[in-house]
Order: sequence, then structure tokens, then C-alpha cells
Amino acid sequence: MEKNDFVRSVFDSSSIALITHVNPDGDAIGSSIALKHALEKMGKLVDVYCQDDIPDIFKFLEGVDRIKKADDLTKNYDLAVALDCSDRERMGTCSSVMDRADRSANIDHHVSNTFYANINVVDENASATGEIVFELVGLLDNSTNINMASKAIAVAIYTAIATDTGRFSFSNTSPKTHRIVASLIEWGVDVDRLSNLLFKSHSFEWVKLLGLVINTLEMYRDGKVAIMHISQEMMDKAGAAEEETGGIIQYAKDIYGVELAAVLREIDPSTTKVGLRSESLVDVSALAQEFGGGGHKRAAGYTIELPITQAQVSLMEAIDMHFEE
Amino acid sequence: MEKNDFVRSVFDSSSIALITHVNPDGDAIGSSIALKHALEKMGKLVDVYCQDDIPDIFKFLEGVDRIKKADDLTKNYDLAVALDCSDRERMGTCSSVMDRADRSANIDHHVSNTFYANINVVDENASATGEIVFELVGLLDNSTNINMASKAIAVAIYTAIATDTGRFSFSNTSPKTHRIVASLIEWGVDVDRLSNLLFKSHSFEWVKLLGLVINTLEMYRDGKVAIMHISQEMMDKAGAAEEETGGIIQYAKDIYGVELAAVLREIDPSTTKVGLRSESLVDVSALAQEFGGGGHKRAAGYTIELPITQAQVSLMEAIDMHFEE
Repeated sequence: MEKNDFVRSVFDSSSIALITHVNPDGDAIGSSIALKHALEKMGKLVDVYCQDDIPDIFKFLEGVDRIKKADDLTKNYDLAVALDCSDRERMGTCSSVMDRADRSANIDHHVSNTFYANINVVDENASATGEIVFELVGLLDNSTNINMASKAIAVAIYTAIATDTGRFSFSNTSPKTHRIVASLIEWGVDVDRLSNLLFKSHSFEWVKLLGLVINTLEMYRDGKVAIMHISQEMMDKAGAAEEETGGIIQYAKDIYGVELAAVLREIDPSTTKVGLRSESLVDVSALAQEFGGGGHKRAAGYTIELPITQAQVSLMEAIDMHFEE
Repeated sequence: MEKNDFVRSVFDSSSIALITHVNPDGDAIGSSIALKHALEKMGKLVDVYCQDDIPDIFKFLEGVDRIKKADDLTKNYDLAVALDCSDRERMGTCSSVMDRADRSANIDHHVSNTFYANINVVDENASATGEIVFELVGLLDNSTNINMASKAIAVAIYTAIATDTGRFSFSNTSPKTHRIVASLIEWGVDVDRLSNLLFKSHSFEWVKLLGLVINTLEMYRDGKVAIMHISQEMMDKAGAAEEETGGIIQYAKDIYGVELAAVLREIDPSTTKVGLRSESLVDVSALAQEFGGGGHKRAAGYTIELPITQAQVSLMEAIDMHFEE
């Protein structure tokens, strides 16, 4: 229903803005780029907006270099479409593009979506917004006789789905997800090359940092708790950038038997940022809230005005309380 | 054609032996266990044979504890089926079970298969032997009115396919692969749980070893060559077992720009085992052959009677020759 409304709205529009969320991930960028290519095949004037920089790893996507930022926010569009944004705020400064557009649409898969647009194509059973975009592209194909099966669209949707499902490993990965990916390969995705780009490309600095951080690994509570830390000295030694600290916590969490993993990152000698992950038992958002932070049950964090060593002591005390409850 | 012959042969047999290859991997074990479950649903007496131990990581598969070894090789079967074996030798000592059986079949996806059985179900376009077993199970379902859609079969085939495609990332991953996986999820695979078991479960010892080995990482030839080593001291410090050294070379190969990765493993103070991986340019099997080893273009190895440091010097000299060609 809403999908058909979306298609009609596209037909009624000449200029279309696509807007995705701050700190864009693979689904944000992939779903936006895919829809951009499809709409351009229909002769629409399309711009993609994102408040923040596109991570280097996604720079290979065709058209990603033309994504606009906050300094281009004065244009008016017939239709503005938010992608992968559960609410208006997720668009950051770019929400003003939607405010000024004649009509608005919202394509998303988050269960928390607030239905903030004129047309809301929300499917919380979709593994990724890219999965919904695949279905919309199919509808556009049917209603236009334009063949939408292009490699550029397929690569972008594959990027969206493969990243948001953690390489087809999260519980959101459905039979439909795999059937869509089968079609994307038929549309021309080079699985080997794309997987290399998305999942097997680490910087030398990241690998060096990983080694240094693993050497700090400590286990507590009969192997249920794994804690590592990242000092500024390690960052300098590895020559690593801040964004390269991200995936390292996974190595503590993936140890067999670990229920709670923490990485303590030295921001300055008296400030520590703490990342927390939980396997299933512990609600780490409750733990983070005790220190003024937040997050989800399985991933949370906080910043504390203590050097690493003392931050670790206070964290361990809080963890002990949680495990004894 | 051959698939129908296989089905007929199953109908004509009461006792069936399934045999897979030495050093069994996920496809060997998963495809054998899946076929075992399907044949048992038909009331057949089925035994699975494997010369070597089953890696711990696959112990969760239902029925894996009843796989027989070399000491059970005296039974006679109506039909013996080799799975994932490109030739008779791949069965190791268990090939004698096939020698004594009334009929033989060979289910495999290797292009090098030698068609050594009475019935040869060989499909080199299949991503895994598990993919062929899925199709055979479908044929058995059709010809018996027995519903083969069981969780145990699905989990075993998923294990076969997900491991042999490197989590759906190798070029052997086809549209058909993804459509089969879609069906397996419908049959009851818990994707999140199974992915955790197969890909996100590391021992504490493995992670410790990874950290120590990464600290030895050295880059050569403008970042095209990455070399790491594993001393016995590191193994002892981490408390790691030999089979835990396997996946570590990937961390050198996955560094952006690396064309050739090598890991040198100290076997004893005067013997070094060298593992080689190539991204695309270098034929590492040619390199390994120079030292009396072998393998494939992209993965090869050899053992050399030299301490690690000298083994690394001789390797670097050989690499220099290959890059200058």
C-alpha cells in the first residue's frame, strides 16, 4: 500500500532529495545510492544528502562522491525521502531539506520509526533499508518498463544488506534476505571482490593496534568478563586513527564463554571512554547508565573522568554488582 | 541424470556407508551428517566414516559423535558414498570401506574429481558438496513422500555451505547458493546462533596467540608483502594448541595492499613450517615448490630445515626473485 503510494509520489515528482542519517553506515549509504541510481534511470533530478563524512570504506560505490553536505541545504525539491532514519533527528542538519520539500517519504526498517513523513514505507522485518529499496526498485521496474537490474544498484543494495546483517549472521537475516541477494548476484555483483572491499580490507595501522590491544586482554569471573584497554601510547605506536578503534571490542566479545566485553579507551590522562558489549545475560545499557552513559542491552558505553586503571576498577565493581544480582 | 541414479541406488540399499576426507572441514562433516539424517529418515542403516578427528568447532552437529574411525573398517555395506573427496586417496584409510561395498557413489564439487565410483554426482559449479546434498535430499523427498525439511539437516547443510564459501564471500557463492540458504532458514536454522558457533567463537588462547603473532608483523616491498612468525615460546605463553594457528595468516593477507602474506611457524629450533597466501598477483604454489612444498596459486606452504630467522631470510630472497620477474 505505502509502497504504491511511494511509487506514485515518485511519478509526480521531477526533483527528489534522498537524505540519510548522521554517522552513515553501509545501509544508510548503500540504500540511498541504490535508490538514486534507480530514480536517475527514470530521468529524475536526484541529490543525496548526509550531514557527516562518508567513511573511506564505502568510497568505491558509484555516485558516493556526489553526496551533498550541510552547505548545500538551500535547494527545494518536489519530494524528500529519508532513508534508514527512525526519526527526523537522525537526519541531523539535513532534516531542513525535508522541511522545505513539497512532499516527504520515509523508508526505514527500525521498529522505533516514528512515521514522521507523508508516506511511510516502514518494514521492521526487513534486515536492512536496502532490502525495502530492492522491493521499491522492483515496483519502479514494473511500472515503467525501465530495466532496473543494473550492477551499480545491485552493488549498493548488497553493501546495505551485507553490512546491516553482519555478513548474513544476525537474526534479522531472513529467507527473503538471501533470495534478494541471489537476485543481486544475477544483476552483476562480484561477490569475491565486494566482500574483499567490505570485510577483508584492514589498514596496517589497524592490525598493529589490534595486536597491541589484545596484549592487554584480561579475563574475570571465570572467563565471563573480558576487558582490554587502548592507551594513547598504543595509538601513537600503531599510528592508528580514532575510527580504527571501533571493531576491536568484538575480539573480546567473541571469546568462547564471554558474557560481557569491555574496552577502555584513554581520551586524555584523566578521561576514559568505555565501550561495553553483552552476549545475552547482562544488560549493558543499565551498566552504562550508572556512569551517565547509555545504549542498548547488548551494546552501550560511557565516558568517565578517571584514568584508565581507576576506570577499570570502578567498572569491575559495577560488573560485580550486576553479576551478583 | 547421475542424481537420479544415486536416488535409485539408495532405494536398492539397506546399509549405507558415508565416507568423507582426511582433515575434515565444515563441508566434509556437514554434507555427510546431512545425508546421514536424510537416509535414516528412510529407514536405512547409515554409518559415517572419517579417518581423522572431527574439529571441536563442529561437535555441536547432531550425530557427529557417532562418526566412525579406522578401527571400524571391517563392516560391509550395500552402498558406500564418498562426500567431498576429489579422489579415492582423500578418504585415507577409510577408502577400504568403499573397496568392500557392493556399489559406490561419489558426491563432490571439486573440478579435479576423478570419477572413481560407480555413480559420480559431481558438480563443479556447486559452492560446496553440501549444496549437492541439498538437491539430493530434495529428490529423496520427492520420491518418498517423506518430509526431509528438518532442522538437523538444515543446520548441517548450512554449516557445509557457510564454511566452504567463507561466509558467502568467495567467488563460488552463486544465486543458487543463496536460494538454498533461504530454504535452510525456512527449515529452522537459527542464523544468529549458528553464525556464533561457526565464526564468532574463539578460544581465549587463540586470541592471546593472535595478539602475540601480530606483534611480529613486518611489511616489505612497499606494503605488498606481510610476514609474521609463531615461535614455540609464543605458543606456550598463549597456551595455544597447534590447530589454533590456522586462521591467523588471514590477518596478514587482509591488510590493504598486501599481495603476499606469510606466516613462519617454529616446529623445533631448526625446523620451520611456512604458510603462504596470495591476493592475486603471485603464484605461491610456485614459490612453495622451490622449497619442496606445494599447494594452490593462492594458498601454499612448505617445511624447511632452518631456524625461523634464517627461514625468513631465504623466503625473502625467493620473494624478491618472484616480484622482479
